[in-house]
This record gives sequence, C-alpha cells and structure tokens, in this order.
Amino acid sequence: MALKTLSAKAAAALDKELMSTGAFSIDQLMELAGLSVSQVVYRVHPLNKGNRVLVACGPGNNGKLINGGGDGLVAARHLRHYGYQPTIYYPKRSKSELYQQLEDLDVPFVEDFPSALNSADHVVDAIFGFSFSGEVREPFPAVIKALEETKVPVTSVDAPSSWNIEEGPPKSGVGSSFHPEFLVSLTAPKPLVKHFQGRHFVGGRFVSPSIAKKYDFEVPEYQGLDQIAETNPTGQKL
Amino acid sequence: MALKTLSAKAAAALDKELMSTGAFSIDQLMELAGLSVSQVVYRVHPLNKGNRVLVACGPGNNGKLINGGGDGLVAARHLRHYGYQPTIYYPKRSKSELYQQLEDLDVPFVEDFPSALNSADHVVDAIFGFSFSGEVREPFPAVIKALEETKVPVTSVDAPSSWNIEEGPPKSGVGSSFHPEFLVSLTAPKPLVKHFQGRHFVGGRFVSPSIAKKYDFEVPEYQGLDQIAETNPTGQKL
Repeated sequence: MALKTLSAKAAAALDKELMSTGAFSIDQLMELAGLSVSQVVYRVHPLNKGNRVLVACGPGNNGKLINGGGDGLVAARHLRHYGYQPTIYYPKRSKSELYQQLEDLDVPFVEDFPSALNSADHVVDAIFGFSFSGEVREPFPAVIKALEETKVPVTSVDAPSSWNIEEGPPKSGVGSSFHPEFLVSLTAPKPLVKHFQGRHFVGGRFVSPSIAKKYDFEVPEYQGLDQIAETNPTGQKL
Repeated sequence: MALKTLSAKAAAALDKELMSTGAFSIDQLMELAGLSVSQVVYRVHPLNKGNRVLVACGPGNNGKLINGGGDGLVAARHLRHYGYQPTIYYPKRSKSELYQQLEDLDVPFVEDFPSALNSADHVVDAIFGFSFSGEVREPFPAVIKALEETKVPVTSVDAPSSWNIEEGPPKSGVGSSFHPEFLVSLTAPKPLVKHFQGRHFVGGRFVSPSIAKKYDFEVPEYQGLDQIAETNPTGQKL
C-alpha cells in the first residue's frame, strides 16, 4: 500500500476547515505543530549529541497559514525548555509578536546563517511550508545552498525547503541536491515524501477520524503521550 | 524551605503579563495548560486502570482567564487522542467554540453529573480556577457534593473546586470535606496547596526564568519532554 499523501491544495483546504468548522485557532494549531517538531528533534538528536540547534524560520504564518516561521519559533521555545540552546535565523519577521517569547528566554537571533551553521549541532529547516511554490526568493537561496552543503543534520518541517510540494526536489539549481536527514510532515505527508530518503515522522495529534476520512489520509498510530509517530515510506508504523 | 506560592492576585497579574509583553495568546496558554492536565491524568491513571474519564468544566475562560472550562476541554481532547473515553460535563458554555473540537471526536456531553460519575474511572475537576472566590453558584453545589462523596479518584486543576485560593477548603458547607487525590497547579502552586494532602504536580512548561524571578516562584525541574513535574509539599522534586 502506497503512503497516502495530501496535495498542497488539499492541505490548505484542511487547514481552512480546521479553523472554521473544526473550531481550532491558528495559535492552537501552531502550538501543536511546533510541539511536534520539537519532539522530533528530541527523538533524532538527543541532548547528549550536542545541544546547539539552529532554527531557520521562513516568512510564513502571517495569520494565514500554519506553516512557516511560526512552527519554528514555537519549536525553538520548547527546545529551550527541554535544555537545548537554540539560535534563530528569522530574516523576514511576520507581524506576529511570537518571537518575543524567544527573546524573553534569551534565545539569540542571528543574521549570518552560514556562520551560525558552523557552530550548530542540528538544524531545523522551517523556512518554507506546504504553501511554497515557484522560486526561492532572497535572502533564502544562500541559506538553502548552505543546507545543501553542510554536514550538520537537518530536520525539515513539512518539506525540504525549495522542494516542490507535489514534485519533490528542483531538477536543477538551488535545492536540487538538498536531502535532509529528517522530515516531519504536519497532519499528513505531502506528495514530495516519495522523493525523501531519510527518517520520516508525522506530527499533529489533533486530527479527528472523520477529518482524516474526508481528506483520505491515515492517522498514524501514536504511542503514549507522543505528538509524533515515525513511519516508513509505505506509511506503516516502524 | 516552604513551597513558594502565587496569590490569586499575582496569578492574574502573571497571566496578564504573559499575554501582553510575553506575547502569548490565550489559545496558546490554554493549549499548554490542557496538555499539562492530560499528562497528569496519563501519569496517575494509566489507560489500563480504566479509560472512562469524566471532565467537569466550569464557566471560566470567556476570553479573560486561562483557567476554567477551556483547560478541561483541551485536556479532554488530548485524552481522547491518547485512547481514553472522555465524557464532558459543561453546563455553562462560554462563547468559545472550543467544545466543537470534542463533538468532532464524538466525545459525549452529559447533563446529569451524578449519574455520569457512577460510570467514570477518573474525574477531572476543571470547574473553578484560580479566579474563584465567594459562593459556589448553581448548578455546581450538587456537583461539588458528588465529588466530596465519590470514591472515584479526582484530579483538580489549580484548585479543588469550592476551595478558597488563599485559605483552602471552606470551613463548613459544600466543599468543606472535598479532598481530591491529585492536584495540578498551572504555572505555580497557589496558597491553598498547603491544605492539600494528595499528589501534587506543576504544569505549564513555558515560563521564562525572568518571569519566575519577578513573581518569586520556582520553575520545577521538568524531565525529558514532560510538560508536568511532581513536587512534594516543600516544592522539591520527588
């Protein structure tokens, strides 16, 4: 059985439904998404492997979508409370004041991504979410290039940034050789997951069976209190 | 060293500060509070002890305070996802549409609290929060009386309902012999904790050290990914 995925269009419709008839607020969904991302990092990169996590946040979530910078900022807050030392790269701040929560925890914001990468043990790529399409705009091409070339392990959120949500990695140019070690799909995997070779997780333990049925995807078998579940490329629990 | 507590007035000021300069939204705080409550239930009442959890939600959280019904509704949603079978008693619905999230999970809402209690394995008392003072209003006196008399274990959120936040249990009348087995204090314990004899937890792993210092309370030593920490009556980790 092939892994059931959610197209970018269906994912946007699902978000819209969760926030209207589902009665979820964007802040609730973002909190749960960021919590899932933080749990993936904790699972794949335990504190004893080095606690310096560089979180790259994109321009998303200015009140319209779950994905983008908001997830990264929430994940960084949880990581800080777990005992990691996060650093944030967030060149295009949204109108949300969420970043203030990080400043209150003395989490540094950096402007030079490549040099921050040099002193990181792990990277969270929360640059582009499932709403990404088209070209990688400034200042992100250099960031994607650094992620392509680094040996620091990367966890991408919903999509390796620069990948087309349906088609996977770009055929050429920036991002064409970007293959992160870890991917966390929020709510459900997107079609690009077929091109992903690393360890894959699904996060967001708030979907009702009726919503999953309507959008034709599987809710994974979460264990205990976990907000994430690891699945193999066929979508089965590992 | 005595356990440092937060008066009702200080707790209200703290909430206000988190939501203004702290840049937290009420939905974020409520989600994290409800998540903490769900983790306490999972800890003290594992699924194999019976999965029928009756969640009693009060009239709170109509946009002003974290506590009250909102925490209970969020906790019930998480418990449902963990595999419990929650039932909700929520006689005074706030304007929030949060309860819709439970209806979408086919979680039943009941009107007759005493008979729902007869078929419950555990109860979450999220009736009154730290903003409670004065008299227990209808229809809650009968609910508190049922909680006083039941043998079903109870987890209270922030305060055993009917207790005075500073003084503890009422000297006489309804609630004067209500002693729940478990208490989860959100953010920090309130003065009533001195009168509490059961197992005590602190929840809400989002407080910055600077906020804790300003309001003069201790952030407990959370472990791993836990959103809760058990403390003994002197506030030390168990």
